Amino acid sequence: MTKHIDLNADMGESFGDWVMGNDPALLDTVTSANIACGFHAGDPDVMAKTMRLAVKRGVGIGAHPGFADLQGFGRRRINLSAENLRNMICYQLGAAQAMARAAGGQISHFKLHGALSNMACEDPEIARVCYKAAQEIAPTIKIMVLASTPMQDVAEELGCYWAGEIFADRAYNDDASLVDRSFPGAVIHDPEQAAKRVLDMVQRNAIISANGKHIAAQIDTICMHGDTPNSIKIAKAVKSTLLRNEIAVRSLATASYKF
Amino acid sequence: MTKHIDLNADMGESFGDWVMGNDPALLDTVTSANIACGFHAGDPDVMAKTMRLAVKRGVGIGAHPGFADLQGFGRRRINLSAENLRNMICYQLGAAQAMARAAGGQISHFKLHGALSNMACEDPEIARVCYKAAQEIAPTIKIMVLASTPMQDVAEELGCYWAGEIFADRAYNDDASLVDRSFPGAVIHDPEQAAKRVLDMVQRNAIISANGKHIAAQIDTICMHGDTPNSIKIAKAVKSTLLRNEIAVRSLATASYKF
Amino acid sequence: MTKHIDLNADMGESFGDWVMGNDPALLDTVTSANIACGFHAGDPDVMAKTMRLAVKRGVGIGAHPGFADLQGFGRRRINLSAENLRNMICYQLGAAQAMARAAGGQISHFKLHGALSNMACEDPEIARVCYKAAQEIAPTIKIMVLASTPMQDVAEELGCYWAGEIFADRAYNDDASLVDRSFPGAVIHDPEQAAKRVLDMVQRNAIISANGKHIAAQIDTICMHGDTPNSIKIAKAVKSTLLRNEIAVRSLATASYKF
Amino acid sequence: MTKHIDLNADMGESFGDWVMGNDPALLDTVTSANIACGFHAGDPDVMAKTMRLAVKRGVGIGAHPGFADLQGFGRRRINLSAENLRNMICYQLGAAQAMARAAGGQISHFKLHGALSNMACEDPEIARVCYKAAQEIAPTIKIMVLASTPMQDVAEELGCYWAGEIFADRAYNDDASLVDRSFPGAVIHDPEQAAKRVLDMVQRNAIISANGKHIAAQIDTICMHGDTPNSIKIAKAVKSTLLRNEIAVRSLATASYKF
Repeated sequence: MTKHIDLNADMGESFGDWVMGNDPALLDTVTSANIACGFHAGDPDVMAKTMRLAVKRGVGIGAHPGFADLQGFGRRRINLSAENLRNMICYQLGAAQAMARAAGGQISHFKLHGALSNMACEDPEIARVCYKAAQEIAPTIKIMVLASTPMQDVAEELGCYWAGEIFADRAYNDDASLVDRSFPGAVIHDPEQAAKRVLDMVQRNAIISANGKHIAAQIDTICMHGDTPNSIKIAKAVKSTLLRNEIAVRSLATASYKF
Repeated sequence: MTKHIDLNADMGESFGDWVMGNDPALLDTVTSANIACGFHAGDPDVMAKTMRLAVKRGVGIGAHPGFADLQGFGRRRINLSAENLRNMICYQLGAAQAMARAAGGQISHFKLHGALSNMACEDPEIARVCYKAAQEIAPTIKIMVLASTPMQDVAEELGCYWAGEIFADRAYNDDASLVDRSFPGAVIHDPEQAAKRVLDMVQRNAIISANGKHIAAQIDTICMHGDTPNSIKIAKAVKSTLLRNEIAVRSLATASYKF
Repeated sequence: MTKHIDLNADMGESFGDWVMGNDPALLDTVTSANIACGFHAGDPDVMAKTMRLAVKRGVGIGAHPGFADLQGFGRRRINLSAENLRNMICYQLGAAQAMARAAGGQISHFKLHGALSNMACEDPEIARVCYKAAQEIAPTIKIMVLASTPMQDVAEELGCYWAGEIFADRAYNDDASLVDRSFPGAVIHDPEQAAKRVLDMVQRNAIISANGKHIAAQIDTICMHGDTPNSIKIAKAVKSTLLRNEIAVRSLATASYKF
Repeated sequence: MTKHIDLNADMGESFGDWVMGNDPALLDTVTSANIACGFHAGDPDVMAKTMRLAVKRGVGIGAHPGFADLQGFGRRRINLSAENLRNMICYQLGAAQAMARAAGGQISHFKLHGALSNMACEDPEIARVCYKAAQEIAPTIKIMVLASTPMQDVAEELGCYWAGEIFADRAYNDDASLVDRSFPGAVIHDPEQAAKRVLDMVQRNAIISANGKHIAAQIDTICMHGDTPNSIKIAKAVKSTLLRNEIAVRSLATASYKF
């Protein structure tokens, strides 16, 4: 059987008249779009437009909920109760489901955004509340988790469908967490280096840390970025390297995809 | 066959720590709850709590979308494009659907709120965009329209499921529109008068205007209010008068209900 | 010289159509109003109305800035950078100054709200950024600090005008911090007990902890609440007890007030 | 005496992480910056940053208030009461004043934004409420009005300091109003044509309509845009043409400026 993988990126992060990212370029490259749900970015019009484009290009659509903090782009930590979190997730996911239906598609995956994702990675209780809420609303939704982290443990424990994710342009610590952006080398800028590193990890079914440690991992999807011209180059380099090495690129939403 | 009717009221209009209305009292009386969707009132926590209560009491749940204007409570007119309107309705209805599912229920009806409703009543194009969006997301949803107005015409033209609504405490003009609140007599304050008038209208299948004109109408649901102690008295008086006169009170959501 | 003291309360916490608190009753009792600035509560209309009332009653007006979180009423912790904090304080204080001028008054004091206040009490750096921003915009503004806490140290260090505050209805720990609301006895409900306790503290120039420990304190103002009928009773009891014991009640804003 | 003129542009229209316009390029060209106040665009951090830059470059700072509608960028009409309008203007102007003080400058002018400006131009009552509110808060502030329109009449009637404004890149109707953007020729794209036309109008003290009609006008400031590379070219062409023709370019904020 041929190996295959999904490529995902955050999209629909414009808001009103303010444009962010390069969604058209990303839609040419990735197979899954994580779409902002209007709380930290995006709005109903941006969601509709982005989802219609994704459906047209055959790119899978995911809900990408975050904190209700437009000014902070969902990147500032906010302390919410479990009840707040649960309802905020239901609300955003439900809105995204309806917008996807109106765009002729459907929500196939789910990924936490920004500070909410960081907090869920540190505190399994936050991951549990969010994933459970998503599962309740959409029992077959695929939860994107940082591979081999407590997020994955929670998804497994809840019996969710899930997909293990690695980042194309971020260095890893020895416990499979991301090196903090404030450290040198945390972000990889060279497209060829990023592509080679991703290929290595996918072929070995392992996250390779900055120290060279191999951490066994189920790698289903690779996170790309589109906010800079260079990040688009990285995305293209990763994709072509994978294809040249006979790793198929296929959306998580594809029915035949096996978890 | 016994005649029957639905009683509806706006609920879930609290926001954060701010309480509005008397939802528990209304839930004892009405059969359909129009639940604010977080744009003009309500928030995910208020929605969840209100829906859980409604499900527990067997009261039908409806989405009650409005303008994104918390400070103005959705009562200030905002000029939106058709695209804005369409997406705003999808978003709010989708969010409500998911919250209802999480509460163990489902959205059975749809009613426009405040200035958006007033604008839709004056401009059929606004009604058309909103109802079409709702129908696309939820093909069997029941649209509450002001009976015998252009709103009803639009719902019929679109082939929507719909329910004709009258107000328990508002006087009518000769064209079936509501007398503007700024005119004397526009709002009925006496519970017995309100109850008698509603009974008359329901028995005669007609809206009776302030001038005594009878306008043929399909009356499926009666709108109540819960924002003052007196409005709760009116709601109770209307209900008991209907029951005493062998008109059953039954939710629009009831499967056996025929339109 | 007669001893005198200021009585303060949070006001202007309504938002749009949602009412909170009992501002008219509080305005009869207190001498300083801490007015929400539209980020966690209040809006320009509520601010204008509340300030006009305060000016009319001769009650001093203060800016009461908080986190931009209406749904959470500014009670949820949000991690902001020093730059964010500084600008957020300038913005809210400036808006309050203009609204006060339009109401025929002026902002005489400044008090942090909710989670922002709690965070500033724990982390002097947060207090420093906020107080410095206020001082820069309004060099003679009086900063209300929890008496004998690090907040007071920061205000002294910055050379701010400040006023030491105690709470009428809250028990104290031995380090002059408030007993967490989740502990039994944290909130005092009996008006006579509250009044007696406040009198004791004012006469002894000391905070008296739940354990009976006396902590020397400059007590310039006493915080009251108006959110429940009982809290209004406490406010009235405190005031009449002070007056009966020849402690004058006088606004911080009064020119003759000495710090 | 040499003739002189002010060049103004909207700035500080970014929001959170979303960038809009090209403020650094505009600051090289214009003498007055109209700074968004956080309701339709801008936020406290963007305001602070933009104002610091303007102060550094000696560019005058103005408050540019708009409707509370970030998603619609203040370009959607909202029906507000006079009370709402008045308080909304006080709030935004006061916030801007404090931010300007913190940036080492001060607010010298005032201009309405977007739909609020359009509505004020059509309905003098809206202009009156807004200008009066600004004047009350800042008696010496200079109100930018569309020259020779009812806005100017209102400013004169109120005894405001005011400055007459024309647009560098917009065609005029015979009544001094702007040709609607939906008509062909409404927007001028050629830098040389725009520059020549502005020079003509400034030299003749008249607005020249698309039909060639001359409408006498006091022209104190010229509105530029910075949202496209071409608009920056237009701004530079207008400025160099004016300078070449011995018309000095000088900020409204300059003390020696005579109205």
